[in-house]
Amino acid sequence: MVGHAETQRGAPTATIERLCRYQQVLAQLERDGVKTVSSGEIGRLVATNAAQVRKDLSHFGEFGTRGLGYSVTELRARLRGILGLGERRNIAIIGAGNLGSALADYPGFEGRGFNVIAVFDNNPAKIGHRRHGMRVRPLGELATVARETGIDIAVIAVPEPAAQSVADTVIAAGVSAILNFAPKHLHAPPQIVIRNVNMTSQLEYLSYFLALGEGPPEEGA
Amino acid sequence: MVGHAETQRGAPTATIERLCRYQQVLAQLERDGVKTVSSGEIGRLVATNAAQVRKDLSHFGEFGTRGLGYSVTELRARLRGILGLGERRNIAIIGAGNLGSALADYPGFEGRGFNVIAVFDNNPAKIGHRRHGMRVRPLGELATVARETGIDIAVIAVPEPAAQSVADTVIAAGVSAILNFAPKHLHAPPQIVIRNVNMTSQLEYLSYFLALGEGPPEEGA
Repeated sequence: MVGHAETQRGAPTATIERLCRYQQVLAQLERDGVKTVSSGEIGRLVATNAAQVRKDLSHFGEFGTRGLGYSVTELRARLRGILGLGERRNIAIIGAGNLGSALADYPGFEGRGFNVIAVFDNNPAKIGHRRHGMRVRPLGELATVARETGIDIAVIAVPEPAAQSVADTVIAAGVSAILNFAPKHLHAPPQIVIRNVNMTSQLEYLSYFLALGEGPPEEGA
Repeated sequence: MVGHAETQRGAPTATIERLCRYQQVLAQLERDGVKTVSSGEIGRLVATNAAQVRKDLSHFGEFGTRGLGYSVTELRARLRGILGLGERRNIAIIGAGNLGSALADYPGFEGRGFNVIAVFDNNPAKIGHRRHGMRVRPLGELATVARETGIDIAVIAVPEPAAQSVADTVIAAGVSAILNFAPKHLHAPPQIVIRNVNMTSQLEYLSYFLALGEGPPEEGA
């Protein structure tokens, strides 16, 4: 959902999105025992092309050997380094409704180093109940958890009217990265990274192809 | 999460993603009573730049008047036409767990013409219970609903091991667009459009900025 703004290192945000996908297909290739891969093959697997793969990687130095392709293991390790995926990240989920509960149990997080350490809600009917094996905590305890355990990323899964106030609480607690599921633009100081997931946009994107009445482009997983 | 594959009309998929966001900011500008807007202003609101906005629009003909900008109402109407947003779309949700339930109740859908018409599950403990005011139906009834009511988009919100078999059922029922939340690459014939929403990718994207230890790029809502 991010445009082509430049990061301070000069890589467009769309490049970072694609690096995440390259890393994922490399992980799959590694599991499949594949040793080397070409930029064309990576491109095919993520629905882009060889030139785009090479251009994206060129932001971060030299990779691979012309004519021989990339070592799967080596390229994956370097992408993991660039994306900071070596470290475990502590995730706090705010909102213990259906969406927050689904995210707390999302099977892909733990194996990828994203550790859901707390679930918060302001609803007394939800506080104390268990989600993902943890007691739902009142939002007022967020600052304490941030200070004592550390929260790297806050996931906002609350109704739209509460989203900004939750974001303010999260930011005041010193959390610098937010994944926002509320269909609302959040105001935040420039040093805070916010990633918005807009479900309606996903359907609108599909609508274009329905309107076209034609086949889709290829798509990566 | 889609790359730069070309659609049959020649517009890159990234362009379609941005058109969705342009349409959303134009809707907000229209609500705010703004009459005209420049490509630079649209670019700023969605974290891209004026040249990108003009290039994206150029795939679909002539827009705006040089030096005068775009009429908000007119541009929005044309984008809605391109994206096929004039029509109501029938949405079926498969999976009545936390995620499917959250999606059934997602507040942004109905107002945007996305009409959740049915929720399906294969779990006898869930069938018959209500979600979004509707009785959860057995997956075996999907073909009937597709034939009688019409399903434009199927949302797959089931555990990973069940996702491919659900996709096969959906495709066999004649549904041609799928929004997939299962962390799994689905196999489908080329005429089926699949949009994958990978939650882990969203966290990995944020991880890059945490690793960078710097501010984010701007981001559109």
